[in-house]
Amino acid sequence: MNFSSKLLEQAVAEFGRLPGIGQKTALRLVLHLLKQPDAEVSRFTEALDRLKREIRHCTTCYNISDATTCEICASAKRGNGLICVVEDTRDVMAIENTNQYHGVYHVLGGLISPMDGIGPSDLQIDSLIRRVEEGGVQEIILALSATMEGDTTIFYLYKKLKGFGVQISTIARGIAFGGELEYVDEVTLGRSIATRVPYERNIAS
Amino acid sequence: MNFSSKLLEQAVAEFGRLPGIGQKTALRLVLHLLKQPDAEVSRFTEALDRLKREIRHCTTCYNISDATTCEICASAKRGNGLICVVEDTRDVMAIENTNQYHGVYHVLGGLISPMDGIGPSDLQIDSLIRRVEEGGVQEIILALSATMEGDTTIFYLYKKLKGFGVQISTIARGIAFGGELEYVDEVTLGRSIATRVPYERNIAS
Repeated sequence: MNFSSKLLEQAVAEFGRLPGIGQKTALRLVLHLLKQPDAEVSRFTEALDRLKREIRHCTTCYNISDATTCEICASAKRGNGLICVVEDTRDVMAIENTNQYHGVYHVLGGLISPMDGIGPSDLQIDSLIRRVEEGGVQEIILALSATMEGDTTIFYLYKKLKGFGVQISTIARGIAFGGELEYVDEVTLGRSIATRVPYERNIAS
Repeated sequence: MNFSSKLLEQAVAEFGRLPGIGQKTALRLVLHLLKQPDAEVSRFTEALDRLKREIRHCTTCYNISDATTCEICASAKRGNGLICVVEDTRDVMAIENTNQYHGVYHVLGGLISPMDGIGPSDLQIDSLIRRVEEGGVQEIILALSATMEGDTTIFYLYKKLKGFGVQISTIARGIAFGGELEYVDEVTLGRSIATRVPYERNIAS
């Protein structure tokens, strides 16, 4: 692109570095911000600067938090005996949005992925084991993605955790709500038959 | 969404105010920036702050510029007798990318749009007329979008400028390069027949 201004070019380059934002979108966003009042742009950059400067990770569950202990871990309403292990903050949000879960979380910060050079030591796995060692945990739900990396991480965690006498579960995989049988892939369909559920349990939940 | 952090929520809200960026995309972008080193995020916010603080508009053509006179207006290689009138900076970039135009520009900063409350006085129209009054202009090309707002603005500019003895042109409208006749809409096709061009001129260009 032929920029008439170095300042503009730099701002567009910075936006273009964000995932999923191409050059044209970056230019559109920067020109939009240019048209806004100064105060609006300051608010935008300050929100980012403050976030980066002041954000913490909860020292218990490693979720993003404003304080050293996050709201969920600090809440008296949440059961400490049930830990849901997830990949990142977005998964915590997704599960919180269901209003179906009342235990606490443990945020790994990623999944084991040898291809990307991410091993167990890059994730919050030791801290999870320490939580289990401290006692009081009855069940651990491994709520990880149904991908190769997710399955690898589940297998690794299972091996690490099975000696502690704690119930280890994974979230159910099967046909999504509203899914039509004929369009479901074979792996999912086969698995959903193998892990079929007594009808009484469906009614109960 | 159920944010675990106020700081995160604010940053996501700011990103979500950008055009075409929804809540989920905003969250993805903010979490991406959170994972980057501090220096990278500072560079991002500083590029925006500097742009907003230091950017100018060329006092001749009103294009975005780092200096009071933009590179195009300052260039000795560009013909001052030919002015291409465009809506905004992006149009200047698009035309510069063709390498087909060697005159100068005039950036209106928008189009006349009564629906959006934008009238002639909100645009750089008086300054355009002043440039023509100062003399030396042979031709004005109105390179505006083929929309109702573009056509309204062209008509207004034509009425304002026709008394100055300057050639006024609009860019050709017709079938785009690679376009197949059967898929072209009737208005475009009808117009492209009405404004047909002698074959010799096609070869010459």
